[in-house]
Amino acid sequence: MSTYADRLNALRSQLKSDNLDGFVVPLTDEHMSEYVGSYAQRLAWLTGFDGSAGAAAVLPEEAAIFTDGRYTIQVRNQVDGALYSYEDVPDTSIAEWLGKHASKGARVGFDPWLHTRAWVKQAKRSLEAIGAELVAVERNPIDAVWAGKPQPSKARLEPYSSNLAGRASSDKRSEIASWLKDHGADAAVIAALDSIAWTLNVRGRDVTHTPVALAFLIVNDDASADLFVDGDKVDEELRNFLGDDIRLHERSAFEPFLTDSFGGKTVAVDPERSVAAIELALEAGGARVLALRDPAVLPKAIKNEAEKQGHREAQYRDGAVISRFLKWLEEEAPKGGQDELSVAAKLYEMREATGELKDLSFDTISGAGPNGALPHYRVNEESNHPLEMNSIYLVDSGGQYMDGTTDITRTVIVGTPTEEMKDRFTRVLKGHIAIATARWPEGITGGRLDSFARQHLWQVGLDYAHGTGHGVGAFLAVHEGPQRISPPGGAYAGSDEPLRAGMILSNEPGYYKAGEYGIRIENLVLVVEVEGAAAEAGKKLLGFETLTFAPIERRLIDTALLTSEERQWVDDYHAQVVEKIGPRLEGEELDWLEAACAPL
Amino acid sequence: MSTYADRLNALRSQLKSDNLDGFVVPLTDEHMSEYVGSYAQRLAWLTGFDGSAGAAAVLPEEAAIFTDGRYTIQVRNQVDGALYSYEDVPDTSIAEWLGKHASKGARVGFDPWLHTRAWVKQAKRSLEAIGAELVAVERNPIDAVWAGKPQPSKARLEPYSSNLAGRASSDKRSEIASWLKDHGADAAVIAALDSIAWTLNVRGRDVTHTPVALAFLIVNDDASADLFVDGDKVDEELRNFLGDDIRLHERSAFEPFLTDSFGGKTVAVDPERSVAAIELALEAGGARVLALRDPAVLPKAIKNEAEKQGHREAQYRDGAVISRFLKWLEEEAPKGGQDELSVAAKLYEMREATGELKDLSFDTISGAGPNGALPHYRVNEESNHPLEMNSIYLVDSGGQYMDGTTDITRTVIVGTPTEEMKDRFTRVLKGHIAIATARWPEGITGGRLDSFARQHLWQVGLDYAHGTGHGVGAFLAVHEGPQRISPPGGAYAGSDEPLRAGMILSNEPGYYKAGEYGIRIENLVLVVEVEGAAAEAGKKLLGFETLTFAPIERRLIDTALLTSEERQWVDDYHAQVVEKIGPRLEGEELDWLEAACAPL
Repeated sequence: MSTYADRLNALRSQLKSDNLDGFVVPLTDEHMSEYVGSYAQRLAWLTGFDGSAGAAAVLPEEAAIFTDGRYTIQVRNQVDGALYSYEDVPDTSIAEWLGKHASKGARVGFDPWLHTRAWVKQAKRSLEAIGAELVAVERNPIDAVWAGKPQPSKARLEPYSSNLAGRASSDKRSEIASWLKDHGADAAVIAALDSIAWTLNVRGRDVTHTPVALAFLIVNDDASADLFVDGDKVDEELRNFLGDDIRLHERSAFEPFLTDSFGGKTVAVDPERSVAAIELALEAGGARVLALRDPAVLPKAIKNEAEKQGHREAQYRDGAVISRFLKWLEEEAPKGGQDELSVAAKLYEMREATGELKDLSFDTISGAGPNGALPHYRVNEESNHPLEMNSIYLVDSGGQYMDGTTDITRTVIVGTPTEEMKDRFTRVLKGHIAIATARWPEGITGGRLDSFARQHLWQVGLDYAHGTGHGVGAFLAVHEGPQRISPPGGAYAGSDEPLRAGMILSNEPGYYKAGEYGIRIENLVLVVEVEGAAAEAGKKLLGFETLTFAPIERRLIDTALLTSEERQWVDDYHAQVVEKIGPRLEGEELDWLEAACAPL
Repeated sequence: MSTYADRLNALRSQLKSDNLDGFVVPLTDEHMSEYVGSYAQRLAWLTGFDGSAGAAAVLPEEAAIFTDGRYTIQVRNQVDGALYSYEDVPDTSIAEWLGKHASKGARVGFDPWLHTRAWVKQAKRSLEAIGAELVAVERNPIDAVWAGKPQPSKARLEPYSSNLAGRASSDKRSEIASWLKDHGADAAVIAALDSIAWTLNVRGRDVTHTPVALAFLIVNDDASADLFVDGDKVDEELRNFLGDDIRLHERSAFEPFLTDSFGGKTVAVDPERSVAAIELALEAGGARVLALRDPAVLPKAIKNEAEKQGHREAQYRDGAVISRFLKWLEEEAPKGGQDELSVAAKLYEMREATGELKDLSFDTISGAGPNGALPHYRVNEESNHPLEMNSIYLVDSGGQYMDGTTDITRTVIVGTPTEEMKDRFTRVLKGHIAIATARWPEGITGGRLDSFARQHLWQVGLDYAHGTGHGVGAFLAVHEGPQRISPPGGAYAGSDEPLRAGMILSNEPGYYKAGEYGIRIENLVLVVEVEGAAAEAGKKLLGFETLTFAPIERRLIDTALLTSEERQWVDDYHAQVVEKIGPRLEGEELDWLEAACAPL
């Protein structure tokens, strides 16, 4: 019997002794994080599925695993179809599946620390419709049977200097306190780990790729705060850094604190960025819960001068790494013997050599030939593909540095491209330039810029199935809200947040030819007020400043497809690459950079 | 005491005798029409407000009039502030206002034949929250006190030939019957007047600007139909044309028919295109109401070959009128003595002279100088402005012809333009061209094209506060859903309907400088499959065919701002104008056209 059959059996036995007839296993943590710590990888432990999004539902006789279109193939490779049926979201929701498969009178368990309240309401309705019941568990039954479950990380919280943060935590908390008064609330619960890190000017090492620490935070209307974090993650230095206005509590004290401290008070909770257990604990103690967006989300997205300057510095450092890497790749790849793993390892080694790298900001997407056509591809030993002659290689990667988070994609040709490859690459480049040069009166959402990136692909009936841009944190999450450049509706829906000066986004149009190659050109851009110009009606005129500097593959550009303005943009951009990255290189590397950046 | 004070007093007395403490007066009819017949102009009768959208709420001691941003000034000129407080929608909704101003225990009346069910639910909630009640009236209390209220029109229904309609009504009803079976419904109620006209291939003269007749329709799952229409509107010829499958009933029989005929059956009703009374009558008789979009909406929007051909013919005819008119204007306006009314009258006279005009498709927007800056301007004796030298004149107009509905805007200079005028006109033109030349893989909504029209204005911080395009009917409503070219959200929100081959839309970007001038360039466009090309994944590649042909003011074009492709587009377009309109002109008019259409 396989490991996973054993585990499923063990879970079912545990459910029986817990008086449950089923259980839902999401891939989330207590903070609704995008990336979760190893202690929260219950779905992978139970089923073997290691994609970045998914869930399972287990009933006495049946079980199902729910994944989206990105993982249709992977889930079938990793998860035993004899144990789990494969269900596609959003076609089938867990709530619907439970409504169809649970039996009348069934008690289906869920962990209220791993689901939003909206999910709980929907699942409850589906189960009640068939006379079954959704039951919040006190202890997650997987934790009871998971032998050797990793402990949550013990890494220390570290102060993040005001020089880099640009604002004191007291200043940020005062702003939140004013916001609380405006909304008639006494306190705000902040559960999103990057919001906590931003508010307190601290960083952690508890989650892969995102420098945050496992904690909960309550900010009060006097600008004081209560921080719930394991005591052994806090040392004297941090205690002094935080100061007296931030009271420290054990993380385990959070739930009783919510219930005991807010009777008759009004507490703001973000329904999308916190789990059901938080609202339930507050309401159990007689608090009134006010559903409002986490007050750190918007100010965190609007970078201040120090954060912008740090970001620029981080992009230059990272751009120098990418430039060295591209030179190495151009020389080594045609010799043969390189593959996706070896090349990604080389890039990692070069980032490490800066001495400044804290982490990658996400798993490097290293896609040779057909693997490049999978926008969210993650290489492993089985999928590893060689870099072959006359093929395209796509690499999307980023680093976490103390002064900023980077995210860059370059697409290069090994050998000689076909005319089609050049046509597609140039159309993607034209879309990238259209975003980079867009201007608009303030008040416009990123979604309204999205089509600019696609228009030249659309002209010939092509498109790409992902958004054009996501927000990026300042030494925080590489995917940060609330702004996006994405069309409304659909699988990669944009937000209705207007773009504001100071926001950082990616600009990453692409094109993917299934089974052949993928193309993506990604720079980070900063929303800026256009100097010396204003929009009508006293509004600001906004545009983008490109932050990322590294050569764009000239051998894939068909200059005949560029307008003179677009060609000028490429030449100007490359001149800036030489100006900003050149001083960080020397000798052959500098020569290579200058050649790679010569006018078209 | 003013007429309007008397009328308000009379209404209040009537309310008292009807045992009501208030009443809501919308500007709608029983069909949720955009333009309503004179018999339904209760708001104008009561308050004096004659804008195209608004409502009033009357309580014993207070009353309010609700209008949107377009009418902020007009409502204050037309409505006595001593009688009504001015309320802006969407800032204040009627439901909210009632919730704040009605007293506990109040019985507030509404006419269930003039409101959607969604409105009723919202208003009910607001009133219940303060212990007041929303009461459906049997008879509209305004009708009781409105002496000399116009009777609904007695105009005859007329057959619309299959040559022009392109499909028999029986074919359309069969398609609806299949749709009913697909949705498990026994019948569909169709209340939208243009949907009824389209389904039955009939036209009427009951509503200004839209060739429809007041009626209700029920289509059954055997493709038969029940038509409710005043008997004196139907003659023998029409009876024969409709045939036996369409049973005729008096309009007054509609409500009891709904209640008596569908017990235990399932009836599809469009919640946005029908009033609350319809659903209430069905439910009173034990029918199950299924909320589905009116099944005529989508096929009506997708024009068939006959409708497309008719539309082309109508646009040529109308384009010849506009060309003659522009020549006349160019010669006469600089002489002085012309004003908005005289020029609009001349244009009407020229359309009439075709011998084919059935009606204007909307009130002509004739805007000289500063009046042109009001996108929805309607000239009257007081506002009438002369056409002055060195000023811009904007004219947005259209005709209803048997073979199609037209809608065209041209903006011209009288005398010499400033550099700013040319810059703005050229940016609007570039946006117009960007829409005209857009291509995209099928599945994209019109909203995703909208920014193409604005991009060149955005570059310098300008924009326009209306959508870029609306659907247009085939000898039906000039504003027709479900497709739009408009951004998501906000006051002129787009729809989530993908554009499909056969849909007709306007392409009408603009620019408005408050107090100075307005610019708009509008042609109709048809969504077409690009010949000899296909999009990825077996999808069609779609684009636009421009349907409207008349010269675009060359004296307002700054050719230095055009790309060579844009300049070529203007020259090609003008060559087509000469090719298609030239044969309809002769002598000096033809000479003028050729000069107006010479290459830039």
